[in-house]
Amino acid sequence: MADPTLFEFLHTEMVAELWAQDPDPGPGGQKTSLLVLEGMGFRVGQALGERLPRETLAFREELDILKFLCKDLWVAVFHKQMDSLRTNHQGTYVLQDNSFPLLVRMASGLQYLEEAPKFLAFTCGLLRGTLSTLGVKSLVTASVAALPSCKFQVVIQKP
Amino acid sequence: MADPTLFEFLHTEMVAELWAQDPDPGPGGQKTSLLVLEGMGFRVGQALGERLPRETLAFREELDILKFLCKDLWVAVFHKQMDSLRTNHQGTYVLQDNSFPLLVRMASGLQYLEEAPKFLAFTCGLLRGTLSTLGVKSLVTASVAALPSCKFQVVIQKP
Repeated sequence: MADPTLFEFLHTEMVAELWAQDPDPGPGGQKTSLLVLEGMGFRVGQALGERLPRETLAFREELDILKFLCKDLWVAVFHKQMDSLRTNHQGTYVLQDNSFPLLVRMASGLQYLEEAPKFLAFTCGLLRGTLSTLGVKSLVTASVAALPSCKFQVVIQKP
Repeated sequence: MADPTLFEFLHTEMVAELWAQDPDPGPGGQKTSLLVLEGMGFRVGQALGERLPRETLAFREELDILKFLCKDLWVAVFHKQMDSLRTNHQGTYVLQDNSFPLLVRMASGLQYLEEAPKFLAFTCGLLRGTLSTLGVKSLVTASVAALPSCKFQVVIQKP
């Protein structure tokens, strides 16, 4: 019994429960539960960020911090590394996971693509929260083109 | 960054969120969120139960199954073993954890005792769900006399 399984099961239940409680916002509206999940991810990310080994807090190059998320944070939470990291060198980073664990259990048909955002909101918050603890303010969004691959876009907010 | 931390942080956020959404039931009433948490624990326990190593599914002695929860399940979820297991040999078992991880972060004053049930509901469900996958129907309740120690009482439901 691996731990990633426990985290994934708990995450699945949490998403299902919050989604079920949340009334449909109608066309163009956004489900409140997405914000709730993002907020939970943010606080878990903040807390995890505080538990990071101290030496990692020494780097202050933006790119080093992003590399840290792709490697150390991802391994700690998902037991794998992010597959690629790209940047425009102007504060925007695209982190791609070709087989994102929280999506791999989903059927891969196109008709399930619209279900994907609810499985990404928590992790967007997780990235934003960890960055926050490392002193970096950001906006994080996610997109899926083909399951179970997904991209997280991190835009650094300059002070 | 240890995994138990991730699970604990996620559990804490989940409890806080569900609790906050749940209106106060008034004197004598029970918070709906306790049932929701128990249900989530049940389904996670069921799913974990299905991932158990196959050889463990061979035992069918009730006591062996309970020992399995105290050792293998507890280690998988909490990275420690249960501290003691007692039984009246009539289908009732008391599992005691002297330092239950989901309670250790709580302040240990008596005034926090009334907060304890919300941190136990998920785990009651977890035990009931794992037992269910192993073919055992049960009722599971928890009690706390002195933080962070707690007891889980498992009453086997005979068919």
